[in-house]
Amino acid sequence: MTSPVSTGYDFSAPSRIVFGWGRRREAGGLARSLGRRAFVVCGSRTLDSTGKLAEILQSLRDAGVEPMRAAMISSEPHVEHVDGCVSFLRQQKAGFGDLLLAIGGGSAIDLAKAAAALVAQQSKSSLRDYLDSAGDGPKISNMPLPVLAMPTTGGTGSEGTKNAVISSRDPPFKKSLRSEMMVPRVVLIDPELSVSVPPNVTAWTGMDAITQLIESCISRRSTPATQDIAVRGLELALPPRTAWGTGLPPGDLALVPVVSAFHDGSSRPAREAMAQAALLSGIALANSGLGMAHGVAAALGIHCNVPHGLACAVMLPAALRANLAVKNAGAQFLRAAIAMLGDRKMRLEPHSIKTIGAAAIELIEALLEELKIPRRLSEIGVTREQIPAIVRDSRGNSMSGNPRELSDDELTRILEDML
Amino acid sequence: MTSPVSTGYDFSAPSRIVFGWGRRREAGGLARSLGRRAFVVCGSRTLDSTGKLAEILQSLRDAGVEPMRAAMISSEPHVEHVDGCVSFLRQQKAGFGDLLLAIGGGSAIDLAKAAAALVAQQSKSSLRDYLDSAGDGPKISNMPLPVLAMPTTGGTGSEGTKNAVISSRDPPFKKSLRSEMMVPRVVLIDPELSVSVPPNVTAWTGMDAITQLIESCISRRSTPATQDIAVRGLELALPPRTAWGTGLPPGDLALVPVVSAFHDGSSRPAREAMAQAALLSGIALANSGLGMAHGVAAALGIHCNVPHGLACAVMLPAALRANLAVKNAGAQFLRAAIAMLGDRKMRLEPHSIKTIGAAAIELIEALLEELKIPRRLSEIGVTREQIPAIVRDSRGNSMSGNPRELSDDELTRILEDML
Repeated sequence: MTSPVSTGYDFSAPSRIVFGWGRRREAGGLARSLGRRAFVVCGSRTLDSTGKLAEILQSLRDAGVEPMRAAMISSEPHVEHVDGCVSFLRQQKAGFGDLLLAIGGGSAIDLAKAAAALVAQQSKSSLRDYLDSAGDGPKISNMPLPVLAMPTTGGTGSEGTKNAVISSRDPPFKKSLRSEMMVPRVVLIDPELSVSVPPNVTAWTGMDAITQLIESCISRRSTPATQDIAVRGLELALPPRTAWGTGLPPGDLALVPVVSAFHDGSSRPAREAMAQAALLSGIALANSGLGMAHGVAAALGIHCNVPHGLACAVMLPAALRANLAVKNAGAQFLRAAIAMLGDRKMRLEPHSIKTIGAAAIELIEALLEELKIPRRLSEIGVTREQIPAIVRDSRGNSMSGNPRELSDDELTRILEDML
Repeated sequence: MTSPVSTGYDFSAPSRIVFGWGRRREAGGLARSLGRRAFVVCGSRTLDSTGKLAEILQSLRDAGVEPMRAAMISSEPHVEHVDGCVSFLRQQKAGFGDLLLAIGGGSAIDLAKAAAALVAQQSKSSLRDYLDSAGDGPKISNMPLPVLAMPTTGGTGSEGTKNAVISSRDPPFKKSLRSEMMVPRVVLIDPELSVSVPPNVTAWTGMDAITQLIESCISRRSTPATQDIAVRGLELALPPRTAWGTGLPPGDLALVPVVSAFHDGSSRPAREAMAQAALLSGIALANSGLGMAHGVAAALGIHCNVPHGLACAVMLPAALRANLAVKNAGAQFLRAAIAMLGDRKMRLEPHSIKTIGAAAIELIEALLEELKIPRRLSEIGVTREQIPAIVRDSRGNSMSGNPRELSDDELTRILEDML
């Protein structure tokens, strides 16, 4: 093993993780460990209409925590959502003894993380100033209010990360507010909450998690610890026990959790595996960065309004192909590919990075087909004219983790070939 | 892989880990992320006399954090130490915006964790009431003040655990104050701080870490995640590259980090490996529990005043022998033994749990000899008359993780054989 200790490292993760089917009933006790008043950010009207939200809020009251609804959000958060939520928290004099409870997908959790951070700072600036790329805006220096995150989509992993992705329409951007202090303090994962997630969102968020696991494993900023975590996640998300291999019928993919959950939302083992894989993807990426698929996905969100997970899924095969040839990422790529293929690897001859890498890409492509995810950018609304802007806005923090430098020309060519 | 998700799990760990030789200079920025006033608990006069403590406190002032000395402790903490520290914190009106900075071994970190927890509770009771075994004393329900832990011994792993071990003389006991909320929020590990730890403490605390890694790996409460962490720790603490094997000269043990640090305290790779192994041992044990060696070690501390790490080391071979035969712990025991033996395993025929387990025990015994740690209880001051009391007080939380139930009779026989 390469030692993680020779050059030093930094590692951030939630302080406490509670995982289990039906364990949402423990929300009250966990909230009480963080404060006496909980500002609730909810991401799903379904949770509200099915009474699950009410049940969770009652568990808070039973534990002596007063819940207050702070925001309901059903799309990726914009600057205005965060500023509005912070303004409400300030009106309520939120501070020591209070927490934010986020129940939903990445949108709700990111909104709560950003609001919890901003309300604790001296500056009364808009989030826009914090995201100012010139870097001379206000900074997060005070400890944010603690966040209790209850993810419901089994996908984004936001419950394990230190950033909140925020969009803006004018000017159009998608940026991260980021601080080591923004990792949710406590994470309560009840995979049963994800049974009502519709099939398309299940597929997209599931592929987001798988993309995050792969990209954090091969990232140039990955460490042995983040690789271990990503590999565990891949083993859960793409379990090795399926008999699939090159040339075998793709019907066996039905055993892969994200496919199983796509076809049957109530499948407990599938929802559990994806909830755990998503958490691991968040913890891994928070400490290793990502790569090309996520870099381009951000730009596809800004310019073409493509949902984040769908954008990641569409870009993943191309990103893997672009990185397969990188010399110094070979060992990491091989590790990720072997984790993805599991026992399927045994059917391959010869056992070279070339055959194993190609089989891993083939597996991902078969998965996308099974999940009815298109392969071409034109099918998700991208036009040739948008490509220069997409290339320009792909250069965020995610792209900087990609194992290989990609010139604008090369990225343009890759995207044009995908039209 | 057995999935950790089928039955649910709980996992606690520090929010943020910063690891690296010389990184103590970052203490100020990390403290600032937790508050504006830091109550300092220091465990080593050497750090003070060599100016290292002053250097750390200056980095706090430079970052806008006011350091205040709260306690200096050079032995395992007693109830009175904690009560005294809490009383000082109350005088200073410690609360929101304050943190505790613990610099030292397990004693200093445990004292800081206990004081940080107690000062945040409504009850003004003595720690003694919290530790009341009847269970009707006050409880930790409010979030403790945040703790920034800077371990210096590369041994106890207290920086990664949720308990504080506290002793009492009258009545004599050694008990844990325990809460999921007591895990230090931020851990800053600068292995350079451990170069001044004397050889005997290096050996004892190092063997404490190794015992924790093995016992948490084979504990009946272990999970795939805690086993992964423990195995990584064992690979660091007993690296597989040494050529040692059954019948080979023990001289090769010089390459084992704890031996290397014992002979040359300034060895950077040895101090780094042990610092990381100790952290991993703490995170693993906090989420898996321990076993017989730690159960008996607590009692040896109470009745015979044996330093904790030394007691663990002396008990480890007997604990491994007692557990080697357990049927349902076989897979875990094998995993731990293989991690301990590394490449040495290849020299063994046949590859059965019996040969591999025996070789792992032989390795530990050779290690103890190299570290000048006695094998017999009489050599550390235990008398036959004390054995009934030791057996009685071995039944704490640690023993409940042991893979095998041990009757009082059997434990008595084991201890008598070791006299």
